[in-house]
Amino acid sequence: MSTYRAPLADMHFVMNELAGLEQVAQLPGFEEAAPDVVAAILEEAAKFATEVLDPLNRPGDVEGARRLDDGGVRTPAGFKQAYEQFCANGWNGLAKTPEFGGQGLPHLVSTAVEEMWHSSNLAFDLCPLLTQGAIEAIDLVGSPEQKQLYLPKLISGEWTGTMNLTEPQAGSDLAAVRTRAVRQPDGSYRLAGTKIFITYGEHDYTANIVHLVLARTPDAPEGVRGISLFIVPKFIVGADGSPGERNDVQCTSIENKLGIHASPTCVMTYGEKGGATGYLVGEENRGLEYMFIMMNAARFSVGLEGVGMGERAYQRSVAYARERVQGRAVGLDRASKAGAIIDHPDVRRMLMTIRAHVEGTRVVAYVTAAALDNARRHPDPAARRSHQAFADLMIPIVKGHSTEVAQEVVSLGLQVHGGMGYIEETGAAQYLRDARITTIYEGTTGIQANDLVGRKTVRDGGAAARAVIGEIEKTAAHLTGSADASLHPVGAALSEAAVALEDAVAWVLKSSASHARAVHAGAAHYLRMWGLAASGWQLGRAALAASRKLAADEGDAAFMRAKIGTARFFAATLLPQVAALGRTLMHGGETALEVPAEQL
Amino acid sequence: MSTYRAPLADMHFVMNELAGLEQVAQLPGFEEAAPDVVAAILEEAAKFATEVLDPLNRPGDVEGARRLDDGGVRTPAGFKQAYEQFCANGWNGLAKTPEFGGQGLPHLVSTAVEEMWHSSNLAFDLCPLLTQGAIEAIDLVGSPEQKQLYLPKLISGEWTGTMNLTEPQAGSDLAAVRTRAVRQPDGSYRLAGTKIFITYGEHDYTANIVHLVLARTPDAPEGVRGISLFIVPKFIVGADGSPGERNDVQCTSIENKLGIHASPTCVMTYGEKGGATGYLVGEENRGLEYMFIMMNAARFSVGLEGVGMGERAYQRSVAYARERVQGRAVGLDRASKAGAIIDHPDVRRMLMTIRAHVEGTRVVAYVTAAALDNARRHPDPAARRSHQAFADLMIPIVKGHSTEVAQEVVSLGLQVHGGMGYIEETGAAQYLRDARITTIYEGTTGIQANDLVGRKTVRDGGAAARAVIGEIEKTAAHLTGSADASLHPVGAALSEAAVALEDAVAWVLKSSASHARAVHAGAAHYLRMWGLAASGWQLGRAALAASRKLAADEGDAAFMRAKIGTARFFAATLLPQVAALGRTLMHGGETALEVPAEQL
Repeated sequence: MSTYRAPLADMHFVMNELAGLEQVAQLPGFEEAAPDVVAAILEEAAKFATEVLDPLNRPGDVEGARRLDDGGVRTPAGFKQAYEQFCANGWNGLAKTPEFGGQGLPHLVSTAVEEMWHSSNLAFDLCPLLTQGAIEAIDLVGSPEQKQLYLPKLISGEWTGTMNLTEPQAGSDLAAVRTRAVRQPDGSYRLAGTKIFITYGEHDYTANIVHLVLARTPDAPEGVRGISLFIVPKFIVGADGSPGERNDVQCTSIENKLGIHASPTCVMTYGEKGGATGYLVGEENRGLEYMFIMMNAARFSVGLEGVGMGERAYQRSVAYARERVQGRAVGLDRASKAGAIIDHPDVRRMLMTIRAHVEGTRVVAYVTAAALDNARRHPDPAARRSHQAFADLMIPIVKGHSTEVAQEVVSLGLQVHGGMGYIEETGAAQYLRDARITTIYEGTTGIQANDLVGRKTVRDGGAAARAVIGEIEKTAAHLTGSADASLHPVGAALSEAAVALEDAVAWVLKSSASHARAVHAGAAHYLRMWGLAASGWQLGRAALAASRKLAADEGDAAFMRAKIGTARFFAATLLPQVAALGRTLMHGGETALEVPAEQL
Repeated sequence: MSTYRAPLADMHFVMNELAGLEQVAQLPGFEEAAPDVVAAILEEAAKFATEVLDPLNRPGDVEGARRLDDGGVRTPAGFKQAYEQFCANGWNGLAKTPEFGGQGLPHLVSTAVEEMWHSSNLAFDLCPLLTQGAIEAIDLVGSPEQKQLYLPKLISGEWTGTMNLTEPQAGSDLAAVRTRAVRQPDGSYRLAGTKIFITYGEHDYTANIVHLVLARTPDAPEGVRGISLFIVPKFIVGADGSPGERNDVQCTSIENKLGIHASPTCVMTYGEKGGATGYLVGEENRGLEYMFIMMNAARFSVGLEGVGMGERAYQRSVAYARERVQGRAVGLDRASKAGAIIDHPDVRRMLMTIRAHVEGTRVVAYVTAAALDNARRHPDPAARRSHQAFADLMIPIVKGHSTEVAQEVVSLGLQVHGGMGYIEETGAAQYLRDARITTIYEGTTGIQANDLVGRKTVRDGGAAARAVIGEIEKTAAHLTGSADASLHPVGAALSEAAVALEDAVAWVLKSSASHARAVHAGAAHYLRMWGLAASGWQLGRAALAASRKLAADEGDAAFMRAKIGTARFFAATLLPQVAALGRTLMHGGETALEVPAEQL
């Protein structure tokens, strides 16, 4: 049996050496994030992940969430208790505003903690994650009364939250939302409609559930400019904050999914008995705008799920490869007996591929989290803007790329197990099933790729993209100019990737108007170029830091050498794809559209 | 609901224009494979796949095979009847020797038919597939009596066969097989031991099951040179051919797998009650040698599973993309309403990627099947040898590459469905789960890659590899020299891939002794280079044939233009990876081994 161990050494290295925890902790309001406090928090989170969440992961998958005849949902054994403990330990409010009971820690710190939840039990973790979305919505645009009524209980975890966007005919296309909301004389609204794919839309954890619902008022304009956001609590909350009358919202079925079985994915029906009572959040017709502001955080979280699932797959496959004795490895002593498969070169390649992707996407995510902290709290407005521009560019990369490589990583993790990987009891298959959702929800990879092309590259004329490429080039120059010759090939590969990326940006800018369809047919390649280059860049920075530490005789030398080795592997194995993808981007788009639809 | 339709137009095009069916039908013994006969067979097979097998695929997945308390196994509803109809229609003996009731058709023809079984119901199809292995073993090295006793009933399908290789401590490493076989005075053997992962080791289809079992005699040498092959029937067969006494072999459990739920994967226990009666096949200690001869066919079949699963995923995702209305596609008329997602450029990229991989791997497989027919039946021994050398080189590519790209293809197919893809009822998720076994059984991708490096490239000093590269270069020259300018970029990309492949072969030959571990750490990249180049080559040949047809005003012009479009897409999008992988192969291997195992 493999047991999850939080990769604390790597997390600390990334936070301190690469994401600038020290600087983040000096931002106004983050003074409590001192190194010893952060270390203690991570230790405790690691314990909770290992001792409480990880052991529930497989049983939760087997038992799954069940809808009961009365419309309620029963979560698997142990999940409710784990949730109560999670809240009692204060994990739910880690990065939330202290004004309503949160601990106000930097996003960078909560990122490391959340990675542990993603690794140890994704299906459990989705409930706090969705609550987080509801908290943000209310915090952002709720009235003072709404904040007072809902935030303390959502932040403590006494209630949970959901996000209701999708409808059967409106998946990614929110313009097609049809749920109706009619204003009542008392200022509340009556909602009616059906929402699908609602994560933890119903469950047995808490006394109330606060649904955030996108709907359309009768006189609203067509399309996305006519969508409003509403709070629809399961039990209508009295002025004193206590849940009262049952609202007209029901979980009418739950989905039978490929994975994340313990997380109920609900069809929610509003207004079957006359109309669900809802309360407008912010102003009418601005719902989509609010969603977009929150979307960054949600997309970041899902990208981090990719990192967390990858880490878990890595640990599991390394553990198996150490134990499993099979055959004599090529090129080792011929006289030796059969050895552990970790010594087989092809197994080593698989493990290193997993490791390099996971470590690379981890640094990209943590550095982005630090940028989000700076964008919110930096005293200098110009610095806030430039951090925000960086984070805006990186969000589709964190979401799109980390989840796409997670598919490869969990599949490789299963492959390392050979036939045993195909058996559910082994546990590797669950990660394949669970991770498969991450490239879909919170905007598919295609949507991330279009966002990276349209809003993040073309809209500012490539300014943010070129600023990052400039940084990548600087890192490449440091690597090639390093006294440590083992870093030179990393610098060379990174420099080549940066050139390919520059060409790609120029081509996208030049072609986006004249050849819009070809550009968008290549957008996924453009996203992958960015993802690989960003990971290679951050692993290059990691190698530079490790090399400095080695030269100064600081830290764990074996850890530092492994960092350099991982960067070298990434540069030799994964970075060459960037230039090849650049050619595909520039020449492949038109060919993707050549065969007419009716001939497919 | 998506319904499987056999891609008959493409199958005929590939068989006739690219795999040389006409020439194969002139080989001695294949005279019956006239074009009209072949067309009629394919029509009938397509009907059976669509009307009988495809409708059982999803119910079979949901119900799964169940082990009963008495040790029997119940297959899902409808499977036994489908099996009986399958045998009654003569599908079981399609390419088997007429001497014992088979129809003796070329492998090329049975390949097209088998692809349909793989597409429509992989879990069903595994039973005939394993029976085929048993038939080959007995046909190859069985005594005349054994042939007479077993072959007619295995070929008719009255009995089924299994292959028992794997043991808990011996997965890919058959040297570690421990099952014991002790010779008895009557010439039979008593077997005792445990075999795992035995496909259809027990079921309710037939009155008898013929197990082919690898075991070790008491005085056998250590390792792979001490393994013998035995027939162990479930019911001991009397001289008159009727099943008699129940043998001492039991299905002691079945596995709970990620996919292929309808196919029982059994733990088989031999000799718990004193010893199972077995009969030596061929000579003692030559079991592994026999296995290796059969392995080509089994590996080819699993590679073809990758093609078949990919085709089914393609059809399903195209059908969904045509129906699903969502958003306005980029670059189309701004005034238009939301349209089907098939018009979204990123969806088109996904569909084209699936299509290009499926069509490419299909041609490679069919051309290899024709080579196997020629290797067996060509009157000229030199021609037989050169066809065999080609097939030997291609087998690990068909197995390794078709199944690896199948993982990407079924995952893309799911992605096209968005959130619906994650719901089991949609059906796309089953293909992801079912296909995941194909890179594992009959030798993992790592084993195929090592085979391609060691036995298929290094052993003959690169002769077979260079001969194929020469052919690829000729095709590239035809493309670049074609009067049809749309083929020129295909030729250029193919030529570049050929050069990269040539360098890779030279590097493998040079380094395999001095840097064995680095070469094997890059073997998977070498395999992928070959897979992509072979697909690109065959699609290039397809484009040439289509262009000729268009010029001569023959055939369906839209089909021919789509062929050219698919080749152009493959050349622009997938072939550039070959050169990038070449760099990875030559520089990445050492770095995969740099981080020491204890640091992983």
